[in-house]
Amino acid sequence: MVLHPVQHPARMVPIAFLIAIAIGTLLLMLPSARTAPGATPFLTALFTATSAVSVTGLIIVDTTTYWSRFGQGIILALIQVGGFGIMTAATLLGLLITRKLRLSRLLIAKAETRSIGLGDVKDVMRLILAITLGVEALTAAILTIRLHGQYGLSFEESLWHGIFHSVSAFNNAGFSTFSDSLKGFAPDFLVLVPIMFAVIVGGLGFPVLFELRQGVRHRSQFSIHTKITIIGTALLLVVGFVGVAAYEWANPATLGPMTWPEKLLNAMSHSVMTRTAGFNSIEIGELHTETLTLTNALMLIGGGSAGTAGGIKVTTFLLLGFVVWAEIRGEQDSNIFRRRIGRQTQRQALTVVLLSLSVIAAGVLFVLSVTDFSLDVVLFEVISAFATVGLSTGITASLPPSALYVIIAIMFIGRVGTIAVASALALRERHVPYRYPEERPIVG
Amino acid sequence: MVLHPVQHPARMVPIAFLIAIAIGTLLLMLPSARTAPGATPFLTALFTATSAVSVTGLIIVDTTTYWSRFGQGIILALIQVGGFGIMTAATLLGLLITRKLRLSRLLIAKAETRSIGLGDVKDVMRLILAITLGVEALTAAILTIRLHGQYGLSFEESLWHGIFHSVSAFNNAGFSTFSDSLKGFAPDFLVLVPIMFAVIVGGLGFPVLFELRQGVRHRSQFSIHTKITIIGTALLLVVGFVGVAAYEWANPATLGPMTWPEKLLNAMSHSVMTRTAGFNSIEIGELHTETLTLTNALMLIGGGSAGTAGGIKVTTFLLLGFVVWAEIRGEQDSNIFRRRIGRQTQRQALTVVLLSLSVIAAGVLFVLSVTDFSLDVVLFEVISAFATVGLSTGITASLPPSALYVIIAIMFIGRVGTIAVASALALRERHVPYRYPEERPIVG
Ligand SMILES: [K+]
Ligand SMILES: [K+]
Repeated sequence: MVLHPVQHPARMVPIAFLIAIAIGTLLLMLPSARTAPGATPFLTALFTATSAVSVTGLIIVDTTTYWSRFGQGIILALIQVGGFGIMTAATLLGLLITRKLRLSRLLIAKAETRSIGLGDVKDVMRLILAITLGVEALTAAILTIRLHGQYGLSFEESLWHGIFHSVSAFNNAGFSTFSDSLKGFAPDFLVLVPIMFAVIVGGLGFPVLFELRQGVRHRSQFSIHTKITIIGTALLLVVGFVGVAAYEWANPATLGPMTWPEKLLNAMSHSVMTRTAGFNSIEIGELHTETLTLTNALMLIGGGSAGTAGGIKVTTFLLLGFVVWAEIRGEQDSNIFRRRIGRQTQRQALTVVLLSLSVIAAGVLFVLSVTDFSLDVVLFEVISAFATVGLSTGITASLPPSALYVIIAIMFIGRVGTIAVASALALRERHVPYRYPEERPIVG
Repeated sequence: MVLHPVQHPARMVPIAFLIAIAIGTLLLMLPSARTAPGATPFLTALFTATSAVSVTGLIIVDTTTYWSRFGQGIILALIQVGGFGIMTAATLLGLLITRKLRLSRLLIAKAETRSIGLGDVKDVMRLILAITLGVEALTAAILTIRLHGQYGLSFEESLWHGIFHSVSAFNNAGFSTFSDSLKGFAPDFLVLVPIMFAVIVGGLGFPVLFELRQGVRHRSQFSIHTKITIIGTALLLVVGFVGVAAYEWANPATLGPMTWPEKLLNAMSHSVMTRTAGFNSIEIGELHTETLTLTNALMLIGGGSAGTAGGIKVTTFLLLGFVVWAEIRGEQDSNIFRRRIGRQTQRQALTVVLLSLSVIAAGVLFVLSVTDFSLDVVLFEVISAFATVGLSTGITASLPPSALYVIIAIMFIGRVGTIAVASALALRERHVPYRYPEERPIVG
């Protein structure tokens, strides 16, 4: 049973994203998409389209002033397509993987490969759409009311900013129609909290949201995946919150001048946004190096699988942690919550992490060698691109074209690469040839 | 069968090293050990003793001017004790591990646990001593002749510097009796090449040297461990050489002003010394950031197991690479050169790497938060300490006491930690309790 390469489900995701980016680039090059006369240069359009479709949020031109309302609308559409696309694709691939055994048997019986119930696919897409629109509508409503009531914007303006930020937040995109992102709202709980809510919900991933919904209705048992994701997310949020608050409490350029409830709010906001929404209510370029380094770690881990967040994912990270813990405790199996983690799953997690680190290392070396920036800011920029975070210390616009093309590639690989690789590995049929005798090299 | 905790072989190594460091600290605090009057402060003595015993080579006072000839002799002795100690201990633990199965059966039969032939232990120590003294004598002879003949030093002076550098080189210690390390010899093939030879031989590790000797005599098959170590070492040397040459070729502060044979020699020298001898013939603080970053990677990987080099070790690194490669190829087993790598070995390699990265991350975050240095130099310093390299961009002496204590701890953990942890994991008896059913979280 040989699938045509392009038909392989794990390969269709990158192709679909490439098409979306190509269309987005063309649309953004329309003269009416920008405020100034003439067409946007190709590289600027390609970078912005890739950043939007991959829901990264890195920018080389100011979203507020460079793009017309029509251009901003294109960006908004690309974000929605990209976010919905990745959530749907990753969920369906996840379903395929969990049904792999059944599918394999079908394959052996030479049955039709497309036999994954089309009903399921439609159901999944319908549910994702419902959750997306529900959360976005709720967030947009709160933001619109707040912007209109508190900041004196016209209702139409408030509605536009409200919709844009709710879509950008739920899809963990981090694009903002305000030139200074959310810095103007640093003291405002009623703006930051709804956005944080949308970011967290979008970042948990559909499988978790689906189970939470089922669980509340039917008091059913949660899967390991849901347990790890929720506990890991809570843990990482606390680590980021405590770390940022401790490191930045007295920094005169960030939390220093704030009242203490504002300090707490903005430490939490930074903790939420690093995984991996990318809005910022404090100036990233002014953070202490230790805060940037902690942020690097949180960005790299990212959010939940099959959601709008990026990174290697919470489950991948914690799974390797549990494997190490089992090894330290001397246990034969690696268990999480009384469930055994198969060795193929362990090996897949290791593969995803090491390939991710290789891409990041190659990207960092390249950008360092074509610029004069320090490791601090380059590492931050590359991890931000790979994990589709979109935070920057401010160097993006000063990168030379070669580095911008590399960042574009990294955003693309970071968005579809981990998912495509992980799914391709999990979906592949294993060949079990002659087994070689075991030998033990010395470790460490 | 319960071993007294202190008797556990993997635990005896850290204890022995702690004792050596304590004695070294006391000796270095003797007034006659320094050139100026009075006793050396405790922290200075502790830092230097730890750096010498762990064969790291980081210094906060100039070895040439701060210490008397007697003090330098103490440092030399500590290097020799540390290098010989780690090589012997790691080799014996490695032997224990390969005999684990037999030992386990003995344990079950309640037999005497100390039953590993004492004859073996003596043989191993005698062989290590012979190789050590042989390589050191050869290197010292060449260096002495060269220093005496070319640089106009008295024979006694030449002999002292020759011995010091040969011992420091074979033990991958990186201490130098010249204030500018080997920078004064940057154009001199006849100084740098013998030192590079001693460094590489010491860094391959005893198991490899033993097999090479056997192999030449009996044309016997090499083990996987030896094959991986030699191929990996050659590969990493080439990567370092090409990378440093390419990045630094035109840097006016490093390779720039040299003739091209000197450029090649010094690129090779830097490539060799990063893994993990720590001499430098070019100024580390003047290297481009991309070269520092490449050096970071090479330092972290380090040299061969059960030798005088540090780092996570070549085998550990390549083993994980082969596991990933097997996963990408869809092979059921992870094989290297037609031998299967057991899953426990894989898990141990993963554990060593992740624990190492955790120690480095914690160290970097701590040093960043008590100093104003950038990530570039702090990451370099911490990796250099952990992998017992001893290269520095020059910040060591300016670190506050709290950071120096952390660097001391990191040198110690880096030297004995990976070996102790890896051996403890491998030597432990596994308990196989009730097996939980398997479940698959989504990876990536
Ligand atoms: K983002
Ligand atoms: K060293």
